[in-house]
Amino acid sequence: MSAERGLRGRLYGVGLGPGDPELVTIKAANTLKSAPVVAYFSKQGACGRAQAVLNCWLTPASIQLPLLYPLTTEIHFCDPAYIETLRGFYANAENVIAGHLLAGRDVALACEGDPLFYGSFMHIYVRLKDRFDIEIIPGVTGVSGCWSAAKAPIAWGDDVLSVLPATLPRPALVRQLAAADAAVIIKIGANLGKIREVIAECGRLSEAIYVEHGTSKTEKIIPLTVMASGHAPYFSSILIPGKGRRP
Amino acid sequence: MSAERGLRGRLYGVGLGPGDPELVTIKAANTLKSAPVVAYFSKQGACGRAQAVLNCWLTPASIQLPLLYPLTTEIHFCDPAYIETLRGFYANAENVIAGHLLAGRDVALACEGDPLFYGSFMHIYVRLKDRFDIEIIPGVTGVSGCWSAAKAPIAWGDDVLSVLPATLPRPALVRQLAAADAAVIIKIGANLGKIREVIAECGRLSEAIYVEHGTSKTEKIIPLTVMASGHAPYFSSILIPGKGRRP
Repeated sequence: MSAERGLRGRLYGVGLGPGDPELVTIKAANTLKSAPVVAYFSKQGACGRAQAVLNCWLTPASIQLPLLYPLTTEIHFCDPAYIETLRGFYANAENVIAGHLLAGRDVALACEGDPLFYGSFMHIYVRLKDRFDIEIIPGVTGVSGCWSAAKAPIAWGDDVLSVLPATLPRPALVRQLAAADAAVIIKIGANLGKIREVIAECGRLSEAIYVEHGTSKTEKIIPLTVMASGHAPYFSSILIPGKGRRP
Repeated sequence: MSAERGLRGRLYGVGLGPGDPELVTIKAANTLKSAPVVAYFSKQGACGRAQAVLNCWLTPASIQLPLLYPLTTEIHFCDPAYIETLRGFYANAENVIAGHLLAGRDVALACEGDPLFYGSFMHIYVRLKDRFDIEIIPGVTGVSGCWSAAKAPIAWGDDVLSVLPATLPRPALVRQLAAADAAVIIKIGANLGKIREVIAECGRLSEAIYVEHGTSKTEKIIPLTVMASGHAPYFSSILIPGKGRRP
C-alpha cells in the first residue's frame, strides 16, 4: 500500500443478514458501530429493510449516507432508460463514497443479506476496488433466512442447488428447474404467475414453499399451492427443497 | 404446544458461520452463551473447525456434548457399511440430545456454516422435529465466506447460480456447469483432478478461484490454474463468478 493510500479511508461492504436485526454478525455490528460514515441503499420515500436493521446498530455519532435508488422495477431492466439511470446513480454513489474515503473517513456500506450475492454493493465494489482498500463482511443471505424460517433443509448430500431469478424467460426457468435437485427462486415480484406455471410444469408444485420477508416481523410462509395469484414482493422467494442422501 | 411439551427443552440449530469467530451472528452467540447444553459435530481425534469457533463463545457453565463422527470419507457414501455406520451414529446422537431435552434442558447444536445448507444438523432435525420444539438460527454459509474472502462478486442480475458437489459423477458435473452462469463447487477433497478437467471442458478454467478455509486463519485463495494437483481438503471450494447484468 502506498503512503498516500494509507491515509485514505477503507470501504467495508457489510452484510446485514436476512431481516432479523440479531442475525447480523458480531463483525458487522462492530463495524457499523465504529465506522464514521454508514451508507445504505434505499428507495426514495420508502423505509428500506436495510434501514430497519441498521437502526439497531448505529451510533448517533456516525454520518448516515442514504443512497437513494431513482427507480427499481418501474422500468424494465433491458430498457436503455433503466441502464442510463442506474449508471448515473452508481456513478454518483461512487463519487460521494470516494469523497469520504479520500478525506480519510472509513465508510461502511450496509447491504441486505450478503454483499456479494446479487447485491447492489457489487456495483460500487467494481467501481472503487482499484483505488481503495475494501473489506467484505459476509452476511446471512436472504435465502438462508427463508429456508431457516420455513424449517426446510434445502440441500442434502449430492443435491445440486440452483438459485434462479424469476426474472428469467420462461423456457430458461423450465430448463434450469428440471435439471436442479433443489432450487431457490428469487426476485418473484410480478413473476409469480409465470413461476408457478414453471414449477407445475416441472411437477414440483406440491413441494414448493412461498416465503416473504423470512426472519423479519412481517414474515409469511405458506405452501405455494395456497398462495393467492397476482403480485408478490420483489424480495420474496420460493423454496423447492432437495431430497438427497440421508442415512 | 401441550403442557408436557412445554416442560421439555428446546433444540436450537445454531449456524456458526464460515470460520472467523466474529462471523457468528449476535443471535447465535447469545444462544451459545445461554444454552445449558452445547452439542457439536466433530471427528474422533481431530480438533474440528466448529470447535475452534465455539471456544470463543462458550461459557464454562455449559455442558459440552461432542458428537463424534465414526467416519467421514474413509468409506464411499454408497457403501452399505457407510450408510449403516452413519445411521447408527445419528440414532445415537438423537438419543443423547433427546435425553437432555426430555430432562428440560435446552440444547444448542452448533453447525459450521448454515444448519440447513448441506449440514449434518439436518439429519438430527428430521429425527427430532415431530417430538420437540426446534428453532433454526441461520449462519453465514461457508461459500459466502469463500467468495467474500476472495472478493469475488458471485452472482449478478439474472445469473443462475448453481451449487455443485464435486462428489457428483463427471457427466453430471459437465452438464450442470455448462448450464450455469455462476457456480460454486463444494466438497472438493479427492475430486480436485476430476473437477479441474470438468471446468476446463466447460471453458471456464481461467475464471475459477480455489478457496480453502475462507475467512479462517488458514485461508488460502489462488487461481485454480496455479493450484497443485492432488488432494484438497474436503471443505475447500471452487468459485466461478457470474458475469451478469451490471449497469
